[in-house]
Amino acid sequence: PTVDKGVDFANYFCTYAFLYHQKEMLSDRVRMDAYFNAIFENKHHFQGKTVLDVGTGSGILAIWSAQAGAKKVYAVEATKMSEHARTLIKANNLDHVVEVIEGSIEDVSLPEKVDVIISEWMGYFLLRESMFDSVICARDRWLKPTGVMYPSHARMWMAPIRSSLGDQKRNDYEGSMDEWYRFVQDTKTSYGVNMSVLTKPFSEEQKKYYLQTSLWSNLHPHQVIGTAAIVKEIDCSTATVNDVLEVRSNLLSSITGERTRLCGFGGWFDVHFRGSKVDPAQKEIELTTAPSMDDSTHWGQQVFLLHPPIHVSEGDDLNVSFSMNRSKENHRLMEIELSCDIRQSSGNILPPFSNRFYIE
Amino acid sequence: PTVDKGVDFANYFCTYAFLYHQKEMLSDRVRMDAYFNAIFENKHHFQGKTVLDVGTGSGILAIWSAQAGAKKVYAVEATKMSEHARTLIKANNLDHVVEVIEGSIEDVSLPEKVDVIISEWMGYFLLRESMFDSVICARDRWLKPTGVMYPSHARMWMAPIRSSLGDQKRNDYEGSMDEWYRFVQDTKTSYGVNMSVLTKPFSEEQKKYYLQTSLWSNLHPHQVIGTAAIVKEIDCSTATVNDVLEVRSNLLSSITGERTRLCGFGGWFDVHFRGSKVDPAQKEIELTTAPSMDDSTHWGQQVFLLHPPIHVSEGDDLNVSFSMNRSKENHRLMEIELSCDIRQSSGNILPPFSNRFYIE
Ligand SMILES: Nc1ncnc2c1ncn2[C@@H]1O[C@H](CSCC[C@H](N)C(=O)O)[C@@H](O)[C@H]1O
Ligand SMILES: Nc1ncnc2c1ncn2[C@@H]1O[C@H](CSCC[C@H](N)C(=O)O)[C@@H](O)[C@H]1O
Repeated sequence: PTVDKGVDFANYFCTYAFLYHQKEMLSDRVRMDAYFNAIFENKHHFQGKTVLDVGTGSGILAIWSAQAGAKKVYAVEATKMSEHARTLIKANNLDHVVEVIEGSIEDVSLPEKVDVIISEWMGYFLLRESMFDSVICARDRWLKPTGVMYPSHARMWMAPIRSSLGDQKRNDYEGSMDEWYRFVQDTKTSYGVNMSVLTKPFSEEQKKYYLQTSLWSNLHPHQVIGTAAIVKEIDCSTATVNDVLEVRSNLLSSITGERTRLCGFGGWFDVHFRGSKVDPAQKEIELTTAPSMDDSTHWGQQVFLLHPPIHVSEGDDLNVSFSMNRSKENHRLMEIELSCDIRQSSGNILPPFSNRFYIE
Repeated sequence: PTVDKGVDFANYFCTYAFLYHQKEMLSDRVRMDAYFNAIFENKHHFQGKTVLDVGTGSGILAIWSAQAGAKKVYAVEATKMSEHARTLIKANNLDHVVEVIEGSIEDVSLPEKVDVIISEWMGYFLLRESMFDSVICARDRWLKPTGVMYPSHARMWMAPIRSSLGDQKRNDYEGSMDEWYRFVQDTKTSYGVNMSVLTKPFSEEQKKYYLQTSLWSNLHPHQVIGTAAIVKEIDCSTATVNDVLEVRSNLLSSITGERTRLCGFGGWFDVHFRGSKVDPAQKEIELTTAPSMDDSTHWGQQVFLLHPPIHVSEGDDLNVSFSMNRSKENHRLMEIELSCDIRQSSGNILPPFSNRFYIE
């Protein structure tokens, strides 16, 4: 899909130009620990090597790469955050190693190929923001054939959940419709215009907003009521843009909770730092954004709600067919089609349902 | 200034494509009553006439124009809201009079010149959104020399105010800085990177956000502590884009409250429907967004805060020099320079102060 660069800058990049937002990421301990350990427990990947940091933001990954012994680090950043990165790198006495380049990775030119590409490109439910496209582009143009990707692997996960968010959102939706009917009445009475023909499009707009848009949530592990399933596995060394343009998958999940309500699905991701086949990690590191009591991340989980919830019991089997595409209006946002069969442990099969969701 | 159309659509027009947002405007009784009365108490301007509605949104002003007897109404709307407008107009049996045209007014072509241009183009503090540019463009291309503008006149106002928002915002700012220092400390300890060089740019970013960005507020009339002054008067029949590109003004205001705190300034606007010199209104209508107990609008007032507030007393004279320009990054947003001298009733002159504000 062709992307208007100006629009993309207005919509997407602008938030990253704020230190406030970079700080939010830099304060995510799970994220920080994972990258920190991935680098410093695998110094052999960095010592005397050349590194490319795709989307360096504040410069943190470039700095660590240099501190771990890299000979040269190219730190590319599309926004004006590059200036802060440059300041930070200088203040930490690493400007003889790290070179900050302001520009889209798609547009910049490096003087050499690199041994390592490091990047923190993951959005909500892994692929929101579509930044992995840029990492693929960087890899195909600038990584040596023997080079290593940081992270090297990524997975999307999904699991059935219970949640009270659904009732809340349903209430919000109904409140907004009540208000709409009052508004239609008033507009007719006071201003002589009958708006009722817009009731259907208004309700569709509100449904999309309240009921079909996925929610950020920091789920408690207890809210996961069935086995988690892998939706997609990505090998960062070989995946193409085509491999991630559309995600299609059939998932199986068994309800593990007692008699409970299936309120929807939670989606999250993990990434791994394993090095490459010929040059594996000395210590493999995992960064997971799964529901957790202590180790929650700023990504949280994406929650897709069912209206109304469905009663389920231990042993019920869910057969989910999932497909995710980029939204036509904004390639960094996603649209999901999810349909589900439930085979109860009794053998009884519930009528299948099908839902459309939006990751905004 | 050249505007990237795609960016403008992403940033500006997208909100208007939601019925939710149109409904907010349609629920503003002060706004609705003003336009309704302006039209129906001046039917002579509409009966048998041709009308252009610039930015018709839901179509409401076009519908009223037709109901007041217009022969033909061109209703131009840049967003997909045009489709809802078309539906609404049909359902109200006015599709033989009102023609909905989807497109930017700058791009569309009409088959004839019109007798009336009606538009609701006012943004916060009148000029935010810069939509008046589009109305000027429509007027210069499509209004007959004898034609009438609805509204015909507009004014910007400003007055000294007291408010507790300033203390709040100051607290928010200080809280965010406390957190920053903790963050710098943690990042050094846990991850070996010294971020303190970014303290200054971070604090500037936060100051801009918390202290220098004007706030929407629905001021109580008691919060106005001095005489209100006109910042700018616009004759909609003759004003050029150049006249509104920059607003420069010297204002005088006298403190009318007892011993109180000058916490900042409130800015608002009014517009008038007076017809034209050769074809005046039968009944002049005013739409004001001044602080009011009962008649508040969705525009509210824009509040520009001083940090810290200044003690003032009845009879103190403020001499304000005001200038407003469009922001370089987004021509629909504004930057303000405000400086102020205070001559106390005792004759004593306080040291002048100067502030920069942003309308985002
Ligand atoms: N195509 C592209 N070219 C250059 N920078 C990009 C890019 N796409 C996204 N970015 C930048 O990538 C960053 C992702 S956020 C991660 C920042 C930093 N590496 C850290 O881990 O803290 C943002 O600053 C964003 O502006
Ligand atoms: N240059 C332009 N061309 C066409 N429509 C425009 C425009 N600039 C703004 N608009 C539209 O003008 C509308 C302003 S809001 C007012 C809507 C309606 N007239 C009412 O009074 O309720 C928005 O719907 C916006 O999309």
